[in-house]
Amino acid sequence: MMNLKEMDQTYVLPTYARNYVHFVRGENSMLYDAEGKDYVDFGSGIAVCSVGHGNPRLAKAICDQAQKLIHTSNLYLIEPQARLAKRLAELSGYDVQTFFANSGAEANEGAIKIARRYGEVEGEVKRYKIITLEHSFHGRTITALKATGQEAMHTYFGPFPDGFVYARNIEHIYDLIDDHTVAVMIELVQGEGGVQPMEKAEVQKLAETLKKRDILLVVDEVQTGIYRTGEVLASNLYGITPDIVTLAKGLGGGVPIGAIMTTHKGILKAGDHGSTFGGNFLSTRAALEVLEILEGHKNSGELDHMLILFEERLKRVAAKHPELFDKEVGVGFMRGLRVKEGKDAGDIIKAAFDARVVVLKAGKNTVRFLPVLTITKEEMELGFERFESALAKL
Amino acid sequence: MMNLKEMDQTYVLPTYARNYVHFVRGENSMLYDAEGKDYVDFGSGIAVCSVGHGNPRLAKAICDQAQKLIHTSNLYLIEPQARLAKRLAELSGYDVQTFFANSGAEANEGAIKIARRYGEVEGEVKRYKIITLEHSFHGRTITALKATGQEAMHTYFGPFPDGFVYARNIEHIYDLIDDHTVAVMIELVQGEGGVQPMEKAEVQKLAETLKKRDILLVVDEVQTGIYRTGEVLASNLYGITPDIVTLAKGLGGGVPIGAIMTTHKGILKAGDHGSTFGGNFLSTRAALEVLEILEGHKNSGELDHMLILFEERLKRVAAKHPELFDKEVGVGFMRGLRVKEGKDAGDIIKAAFDARVVVLKAGKNTVRFLPVLTITKEEMELGFERFESALAKL
Repeated sequence: MMNLKEMDQTYVLPTYARNYVHFVRGENSMLYDAEGKDYVDFGSGIAVCSVGHGNPRLAKAICDQAQKLIHTSNLYLIEPQARLAKRLAELSGYDVQTFFANSGAEANEGAIKIARRYGEVEGEVKRYKIITLEHSFHGRTITALKATGQEAMHTYFGPFPDGFVYARNIEHIYDLIDDHTVAVMIELVQGEGGVQPMEKAEVQKLAETLKKRDILLVVDEVQTGIYRTGEVLASNLYGITPDIVTLAKGLGGGVPIGAIMTTHKGILKAGDHGSTFGGNFLSTRAALEVLEILEGHKNSGELDHMLILFEERLKRVAAKHPELFDKEVGVGFMRGLRVKEGKDAGDIIKAAFDARVVVLKAGKNTVRFLPVLTITKEEMELGFERFESALAKL
Repeated sequence: MMNLKEMDQTYVLPTYARNYVHFVRGENSMLYDAEGKDYVDFGSGIAVCSVGHGNPRLAKAICDQAQKLIHTSNLYLIEPQARLAKRLAELSGYDVQTFFANSGAEANEGAIKIARRYGEVEGEVKRYKIITLEHSFHGRTITALKATGQEAMHTYFGPFPDGFVYARNIEHIYDLIDDHTVAVMIELVQGEGGVQPMEKAEVQKLAETLKKRDILLVVDEVQTGIYRTGEVLASNLYGITPDIVTLAKGLGGGVPIGAIMTTHKGILKAGDHGSTFGGNFLSTRAALEVLEILEGHKNSGELDHMLILFEERLKRVAAKHPELFDKEVGVGFMRGLRVKEGKDAGDIIKAAFDARVVVLKAGKNTVRFLPVLTITKEEMELGFERFESALAKL
């Protein structure tokens, strides 16, 4: 008999450097392996499990929908899809229409399509250039890879589509604008780029300038969206109104879903874009339940309370270990510890895992914390206790 | 209060020409609207609902998994993912490794990436051209749109990536091969292109020729895969061994999932490709259950029995209405009635819907039938009864 590790290595294309821990179930921030050992999850499946593992309300919604109707195609009305689109508009406060896809990459592809459609005049694409930022990450489809401002992502898989230019930072964006520029696409906190939030004033000035110049602002909120920063969208936190916002990770609580919200209603017409699975009964019903759970959590004050505690706790760790960390970075429940030069974030992550707390890497030198948004004080304390015990052994 | 139609039109980007029927639940081939009216579903959400609506075994698997663990990210072992990759290899009989994505478009993006990776020599892409067929459909991401051999799909959203050339038919592929050709990507039955199966002898000759010339054969089985043609894969039916097969629609029974199977094991390495949701606990557990249900259905003889009956029944309709139909086309449970010149497939589909049987359109002039693979004789008879009553009124 082949064990699971051998099975995985034999039959799955080896695109992941896997840790072969065998998780079998979860409860909110806790994960349990096949031997019954518990782990505190400060990673949330990379910001996906927004309402925690094994959330009974989410499970009940998914169960109920799976028994009734999973999918019919977008040729027919899908009630939870219409309701989800309405809730996204209401909660964000933006006057938008939404298109549903199946992932963050698909959401960003859709955003790029909308932007280029906007740049079209009388059937011809007059403006098509999209400015993105260095160290950004926008996904793994060929066009999303090209939109990603990391040179290493532009090898192997070409020819890539033209029309993307990369700014070193927000100030540099202005230098790159030309007559062909139709959009600027940014993350407000670069998730893969080291959990570094943009400056609020710079972002607001950018939003204003772009509006004046009729250039679209696309905010990739695949990771920052759905209460990850403490607000419904990071764009709310920054006090801006983007032309396009993309969502994915936390929206479905683990059920694959992506979304593109745009203030440019009706910019795409019937037949211009589509998705077979996108917005189906199962994924949108799940997302509706996720939004309801998180809205309640936010309104009760619990979300804000816990993210303040989490930040304090993380700052305490950074202060206690100046030999390991330069500083604490991030916002809301998207946090990082910037590792000192000469130290290896990978070693810290491995030691933490051995102490049974799951943390992630961001960029080259950041230990990343993306706890479930419904984390309890007890789970947080247990996680930091384990994390500190791991650091003590380094 | 806004009704659902108004809600949908207000908040959802209008990319679909929706029928505002309000489906609320289903049982195998039957769909029920909010008023309790029943419809026979000969469309399966465009070939997605392979094991029918409200399938209790699928619902139970989804429920169970949703309660335990939906998602952890691909950084860790995912047991049902490893098992699903194994089952896909075993059932297809191909010696392959699989990568999991979230849709057909993402699966085809991955296939294109693998093909181009194959064409790379010493860090440089030497061969990159991919030949696809006219009237093909490969998805809605920018690169998948460019791979789609329909001129109308190549407007608005450019710049598109170079490297795709379009053959009129299989014979024409040979004329287009040059030193830069790395792959040929085809559907064995063009779903969107009119439900027209390729000639078996031509496909086998193509597969042999490409193998000799070291050019990859990519078969897009997003629609034909997972027993839709009566065999696990259409490639099995055609007796070929592609280098890459892509899957999506029927695999998850409605849970969003895509897959790329390739005989080129290890062609992608850690970091070369990835997906946050792809292959997670929920989607792969659902797909495992779908495969088990369909394997049992096939082995019992019921699948073959029903698809023979369905074909006979459809031929009878075509013969009875020579004023409407030229002929019956397709294979397995992927069928069509080619509509006579001067008649409108849309009118027939609308009349059928009014008689409460759901059929689809393919290409310009084909009424498409994609029943659930677990359709019963009673459901089939009821559906055809309604379909014929609709035709009688035209």
